[in-house]
Amino acid sequence: MAEMLPPGSTIGILGGGQLGRMLSVAASRLGLKTHIFEPAAKPPAGQVADMITTAGYDDLKALGRFAASVDVITYEFENIPTAALDHLETLRPIHPNRKALATSQDRIVEKEFLQSLGLKVAPFAQIDTLNDLQSALKTINTPCILKTRRFGYDGKGQIRIDTITEAKTAFDALNGAPAVLEGFVVFEREISVIAARNQNAEVACYDPGENLHQSGILHTTSVPAQLSMTQQTDAVILAGRILNALDYIGVMGVELFVTTSGLIVNEIAPRVHNSGHWTQNGCLIDQFEQHIRAVAGWPLGDGQRHSNVVMTNLIGDDTYSKDANIGLHLYGKSATRPGRKMGHVNVISAKT
Amino acid sequence: MAEMLPPGSTIGILGGGQLGRMLSVAASRLGLKTHIFEPAAKPPAGQVADMITTAGYDDLKALGRFAASVDVITYEFENIPTAALDHLETLRPIHPNRKALATSQDRIVEKEFLQSLGLKVAPFAQIDTLNDLQSALKTINTPCILKTRRFGYDGKGQIRIDTITEAKTAFDALNGAPAVLEGFVVFEREISVIAARNQNAEVACYDPGENLHQSGILHTTSVPAQLSMTQQTDAVILAGRILNALDYIGVMGVELFVTTSGLIVNEIAPRVHNSGHWTQNGCLIDQFEQHIRAVAGWPLGDGQRHSNVVMTNLIGDDTYSKDANIGLHLYGKSATRPGRKMGHVNVISAKT
Repeated sequence: MAEMLPPGSTIGILGGGQLGRMLSVAASRLGLKTHIFEPAAKPPAGQVADMITTAGYDDLKALGRFAASVDVITYEFENIPTAALDHLETLRPIHPNRKALATSQDRIVEKEFLQSLGLKVAPFAQIDTLNDLQSALKTINTPCILKTRRFGYDGKGQIRIDTITEAKTAFDALNGAPAVLEGFVVFEREISVIAARNQNAEVACYDPGENLHQSGILHTTSVPAQLSMTQQTDAVILAGRILNALDYIGVMGVELFVTTSGLIVNEIAPRVHNSGHWTQNGCLIDQFEQHIRAVAGWPLGDGQRHSNVVMTNLIGDDTYSKDANIGLHLYGKSATRPGRKMGHVNVISAKT
Repeated sequence: MAEMLPPGSTIGILGGGQLGRMLSVAASRLGLKTHIFEPAAKPPAGQVADMITTAGYDDLKALGRFAASVDVITYEFENIPTAALDHLETLRPIHPNRKALATSQDRIVEKEFLQSLGLKVAPFAQIDTLNDLQSALKTINTPCILKTRRFGYDGKGQIRIDTITEAKTAFDALNGAPAVLEGFVVFEREISVIAARNQNAEVACYDPGENLHQSGILHTTSVPAQLSMTQQTDAVILAGRILNALDYIGVMGVELFVTTSGLIVNEIAPRVHNSGHWTQNGCLIDQFEQHIRAVAGWPLGDGQRHSNVVMTNLIGDDTYSKDANIGLHLYGKSATRPGRKMGHVNVISAKT
């Protein structure tokens, strides 16, 4: 059995955005403290953390002091520089592990990993040259989408290609970044499974949520998703297989397309996930506490849901109701920018 | 209409214990920051607050800096020295107001206020001398209870008197503190109403909770309480009357005895209340967010409950389950002492 970090211990979190903020709040419920490491000044997570380090990921001294002050390290985003992780992992345990990070940091590594488990992914091709792209467009039909292999989020680093004549423009737009061409998937709906696995290899999943995107950014997640019981079970088993294969510790977001020929994995994220924010007002133990429980060696919540929930993101200057009976979650960001996630709202109703 | 404090504003909280801690977390959901003022070093609330001031309530300079850094001031306990409040209220709004504080700080003032509203309280008498006590024991039957007028909590400053021969021992034990003798009330059950009122005079109450005490300290609160619909409505109306009469802004805990001859008010607390901790896992908007909404000029949640809840306090070295499906809330206190509140657990079930 894993050793449980006792109350009073400190969780180190790489990244001080809204996910770090909500992880910090969840840790406090368990009597755990947090230390946020974030290059940007005055991070949202710092408002609710016990300690903050403001330093770059190349500052080995700061990383060393950070590691020495915490009992375990986790992260709120997957694009942490490798050199920082190399240093940190000599000092403290890091969950989820490097394999999970390396897999999800690179779209091609991720897809090949998923295929190795026998799971379906969208048709794809590795694109390093314009020639690669032109060849790939002969087998992957337009419309399709050219994505950087690394560092993409919220639709950034993605270019839609509607006709093969757009190949050069699209390729040039990525400035030579290693890329992947992905075919579009005709899907009935897009869902995600928020899954967790702890140090005793226990796995727990929340009910799948059904996602709607706008302009490449998640707009709403609704729970329950419109799925047959078989589809729901398939989705949960699939997520569990991914976590086991990675010897994963923590919460993972698994995005899936539901198609007439079964489930296709869109992508995985080795962290708490925007499409799991509904759990804050739909479950006794939310995805943030679940993640903290996993990395701290605690037993997991079982993922039970007490209510139906519709989660809606607040993007840029989206307005929101401060009125009663809407679960409002603002991220404490001082600057509003178009496309920036500023908060979310959860509307709950009786469980069905 | 009241002006709403915009996200990014700072709530000043006097007191850094568990109530301040949970208020701070609730404020973060609304994009509000908190500044904790607390004489003791490393307060539990400091682990999740944006700022902490460690200074005494007699440190006018520190109070002044604190006030200058916040937009509104509230508190987590009612025994704040008057001189500190005199200074602070010249600098920033304080909610709930001085009248509410003054009323609840003194058991006799409180009882006379409640009687002035036509509400029932237990039989009581003001005790300044041993002679007062001996006279009072002729009209208030034993067993009864001698309490200090001020500064009592969790059964502290209270002495049970079983026979009139114990009068002198009991009186001496209070070391001359102004006191009140209270008759015992024969009750069917003890309940509390967690009520809120905001700056637009909107009032919202949660469903009454049923309380069990052990050794003078709250042990469990169960919701729903076993009440007839009439009793429940009476309790909620009564609480609303108290809040209106005080022009109250914030959350109040109203403790009531349910007797065969109606409701008797035990005491009121001008703050979030231990018997309202169940709302964290039973309601979309819990008592802590409700209080922050009230003092920040926001609309109130309507107090709806999505689940049944049994809240159990963790006192001293009480053990608790870290297992799934128990809503665990630990307070981040470094030292465990007998009788000290270390945390609580909420167990939820389907709403009835």
